[in-house]
Amino acid sequence: MSIRLYGYWRSSASYRVRIALHLKDIPFEHQSVHLVRDGGEQHLRSYQGLNPSALVPTLVDEDEDIILNQSLAIIEYLDEKYDTGPALLPEHKLQRARVRALAYDVAADIQPLANLRVLQYLEREFDADAEGKAVWARYWIEKGFTGIEKRLQTTAGKYCFGFDLTLVDVCLVPQVYNALRFGVDMADYPLIQRIAENCNKLEAFSRAAPENQPDAQ
Amino acid sequence: MSIRLYGYWRSSASYRVRIALHLKDIPFEHQSVHLVRDGGEQHLRSYQGLNPSALVPTLVDEDEDIILNQSLAIIEYLDEKYDTGPALLPEHKLQRARVRALAYDVAADIQPLANLRVLQYLEREFDADAEGKAVWARYWIEKGFTGIEKRLQTTAGKYCFGFDLTLVDVCLVPQVYNALRFGVDMADYPLIQRIAENCNKLEAFSRAAPENQPDAQ
Repeated sequence: MSIRLYGYWRSSASYRVRIALHLKDIPFEHQSVHLVRDGGEQHLRSYQGLNPSALVPTLVDEDEDIILNQSLAIIEYLDEKYDTGPALLPEHKLQRARVRALAYDVAADIQPLANLRVLQYLEREFDADAEGKAVWARYWIEKGFTGIEKRLQTTAGKYCFGFDLTLVDVCLVPQVYNALRFGVDMADYPLIQRIAENCNKLEAFSRAAPENQPDAQ
Repeated sequence: MSIRLYGYWRSSASYRVRIALHLKDIPFEHQSVHLVRDGGEQHLRSYQGLNPSALVPTLVDEDEDIILNQSLAIIEYLDEKYDTGPALLPEHKLQRARVRALAYDVAADIQPLANLRVLQYLEREFDADAEGKAVWARYWIEKGFTGIEKRLQTTAGKYCFGFDLTLVDVCLVPQVYNALRFGVDMADYPLIQRIAENCNKLEAFSRAAPENQPDAQ
């Protein structure tokens, strides 16, 4: 198999790439990088050779001799390389721009704020307890979802953009999974909730779900 | 003028878009959204009609009847629409993927953690003082720069990718500006520092610099 994905079952960014790989029906080998055990396997020298940022995911494509980090760069790469499955970035430049913007609303303005390394810092440096960390995570998720819910009022159909699956759905579903972990009340975001439910009925999304990964605990 | 950019002189994300507009020689009208005055003009109802996330920048292109948020979505859109100036995303798919990944190393993994709204939250909820906020910002910038400096060892020339300006340079220069504000010692990142200096010699970068904006204070 030419594609190897280094990821972690509960990492949002790894989850996005798994969804894209399954939607596009691309076979891949899963390599677990345990983000917690022994202080985090992402800090091992062997992994840092692949990804000096010590973050997941990293995708290795042996056919092309490329090692790639950053989930969104990986997904655009896969979408450009493989014409199987849905085109996750639309053909038309205006629509493509709108899709990218909404994907970044999740991937740049929500997810980086509520991920493991940030919560660990809050605990270490600001004595945040479990509830303090959850309050922080909910704050940024809810702020982001409020804006996204408004934008979806003009774009949503069965999925975020009408009836075509896009990069936005691929980003949104892992963020909803994460929101539920922190106790966000999804009833406040009916469009996001409905779209996530529609996506989760698809086999590609359920195969990519954290609980269905070999390294799930 | 068909292009209007809503931004703020010291916002990294606005600064990126200004660099891209100047590099591509696209005339635009600047609309200041003051992020601090009166609790922040980004929260005004008139602005939220354009951008319900209450963040800058927002670009309006009247020719195409599009309102677009998210600096990287805006820059890819401009790069696709205009063939003036350098192509900020390379032609070849592997190189394009590498450029996107390194741009996200800045735009997703550093900048969202050290921006104004996050520092305001730390002050409000965790009683962080000026030094506590600077320690936080430096921590994430230094963590990000450490990984980027290593990656640049295999890609850098005069700029981040050889001798061609790309999206990465457009993201890196505003992040270096931000790093200096928080007292990061750039001597630890010689490649990043040299590339930023090379970029800042170009007119497009100096015209886009915060201190040269009409709303600079």
